[in-house]
Amino acid sequence: MENKKIRIGITHGDINGIGYEIILKTFTDPEMLELCTPIVYGSAKVATYHRKALNMSNIVFTSITEAKDADDNKLNIVNCIDDEIKVELSKPTEEAGAAAFCALEKAVTDYKDGLIDAIVTAPINKHTIQNPDFNFPGHTEYIEDRLGEGNESLMILMNENIKVALVTGHIPVSAIPSQITKERLERKITIFNKSLKEDFGITKPRIAVFSLNPHASDNGLIGSEEQDTIIPAINELNNKGIYCFGPYPADGFMGAGLYKTFDGIMAMYHDQGLIPFKTLAMNNGVNYTAGLPVIRTSPDHGTAYDIAGKGVASEESFRNAIYTAIDIYRYREQERTLHANVLTKQYYEKRDDSDKLKLNLQDEE
Amino acid sequence: MENKKIRIGITHGDINGIGYEIILKTFTDPEMLELCTPIVYGSAKVATYHRKALNMSNIVFTSITEAKDADDNKLNIVNCIDDEIKVELSKPTEEAGAAAFCALEKAVTDYKDGLIDAIVTAPINKHTIQNPDFNFPGHTEYIEDRLGEGNESLMILMNENIKVALVTGHIPVSAIPSQITKERLERKITIFNKSLKEDFGITKPRIAVFSLNPHASDNGLIGSEEQDTIIPAINELNNKGIYCFGPYPADGFMGAGLYKTFDGIMAMYHDQGLIPFKTLAMNNGVNYTAGLPVIRTSPDHGTAYDIAGKGVASEESFRNAIYTAIDIYRYREQERTLHANVLTKQYYEKRDDSDKLKLNLQDEE
Repeated sequence: MENKKIRIGITHGDINGIGYEIILKTFTDPEMLELCTPIVYGSAKVATYHRKALNMSNIVFTSITEAKDADDNKLNIVNCIDDEIKVELSKPTEEAGAAAFCALEKAVTDYKDGLIDAIVTAPINKHTIQNPDFNFPGHTEYIEDRLGEGNESLMILMNENIKVALVTGHIPVSAIPSQITKERLERKITIFNKSLKEDFGITKPRIAVFSLNPHASDNGLIGSEEQDTIIPAINELNNKGIYCFGPYPADGFMGAGLYKTFDGIMAMYHDQGLIPFKTLAMNNGVNYTAGLPVIRTSPDHGTAYDIAGKGVASEESFRNAIYTAIDIYRYREQERTLHANVLTKQYYEKRDDSDKLKLNLQDEE
Repeated sequence: MENKKIRIGITHGDINGIGYEIILKTFTDPEMLELCTPIVYGSAKVATYHRKALNMSNIVFTSITEAKDADDNKLNIVNCIDDEIKVELSKPTEEAGAAAFCALEKAVTDYKDGLIDAIVTAPINKHTIQNPDFNFPGHTEYIEDRLGEGNESLMILMNENIKVALVTGHIPVSAIPSQITKERLERKITIFNKSLKEDFGITKPRIAVFSLNPHASDNGLIGSEEQDTIIPAINELNNKGIYCFGPYPADGFMGAGLYKTFDGIMAMYHDQGLIPFKTLAMNNGVNYTAGLPVIRTSPDHGTAYDIAGKGVASEESFRNAIYTAIDIYRYREQERTLHANVLTKQYYEKRDDSDKLKLNLQDEE
């Protein structure tokens, strides 16, 4: 297994946005093909269109009909859509929505069949992709539904310096307080902790938990969720051996640079986590859907219709999404190797006078 | 008036915190005395205590009983409290709360009497200061009550690169949506616009308005406040000649560095404004209470009990608070000068056949 190249399934996203541009730019660097075998779910014809629009004749790809035919040293494109499709740069079209959906479905099927090891998604238009089979706010919920196997996902935004996870996601501010429950906090922090260990190789992760209210409520002067919900959840998790701390007022925490001393930050809601992340990350960040058996990452930007086809899009975030998927795959493999065939601990039953080694007793997991 | 030194009233804040440390450190630089005449409302005895604890024998101050006796070239301390007061470093005490309050009251009285030109407040403990005469969440509300003359205040956090104002302040997250009304938005943005013009000399300010919900609600998919409240308020203000734009999702706005292209940012709630500000400002920020006739600034940190008396507190934010008060005072003076004795426009009444200059017609203000 050591030298097996990781097969990254890449969905092309919205064909009228910057998806193909960031994919093509990423794989102009030949070193990328040494790290992984890219299998793009999309259309060689659309890729050709973008390559021409962007004057990128130097980039070569190979058109295949099935992922199993992928060439380890090429940028492979699995044709998932009708060749007659029309690209309309910068426009939200039904056709593009349908094309984005077809690519996702095909990637999901291939993942289930073991043809790809991880999925990296280029940005979709959340409006045009909607159809009876795609009734989700975004990729994350779709992937959780299709490949979650009953597991709950956790959105993590990350770059090399910081990992921020969100207790709640794409919901209005008015809906936040009712979703901050002790149970939800415990579930999300537990998933975060497990992911930091297994996906990122951190033996004993230290997690900072943000407060919901300003000044962590100033001892109850500004709201009650800290006392009633967040602090009890932290205490309970500490008792279970999870190192989480807080609740910290997010502004002071960031101002003091405390994020450098933690392995992960648990934010209560979208803007609370995304604002400091984007302020620091300056668009090189990666979105990782933790908690699921499948590894799925994506860049932290959207379709960027305003600059589609202009050749000015940065592929940095997308390339980092691929690196992250590869890293996580390797950490998980390592974790599996380390925990396979572990020597059984040998117990003496102290209250047993026989003083005989009990080889049949197992360590609790 | 040109060469008149500005008299800055400084309230000592909590005597058990880092208040005196940042005051003394700021005025070890002799240049500060060329910029303003500092009048500290506090206690020479407590100042002596801190000076000794901090080994700062090089700093000299002069004890006075009334602000009118202030020496222009000295660090003046008006004694407002009993000499018998006990300093208990790092402890929240009733005595310290009362001492902080006395200093504020005296400064307010002297401001009303024209003895000082602006007020800079060192941090208080919001719990110990409470008494029947101080029943406010903090300085801002107290100053608005005592010196507001019926005007509504607006909290602005600023440094040299960014100015962030808040539509709502120290309230729980659950209370935010009900306070985001069209009227309130229009009031707050109008105050912000006026302050940017008169206090900071920006002729035609450009204000960015943040959205309340993630992704500016994605056209109503995530909440309705953008469509129902924020956009109508922006449109109405545009019609009145105020250059405000948005609503912008705060995370993407910060990630793209758009804050550099606006004169001010209007955030909907505390963390939304304070998180990006502190992430960028790294504790050199200033809090300015705009909208009032009085000029009042403060550092953007608290009493910092954890490092009180240790000599490690940074005076940068406090010094910037003094600079800001001086700058605002000068801009206001300039504004007053520019608008005093303006030449009256001369009108011909077009429908008047007499063709005679009407000198008595006035320009509308």
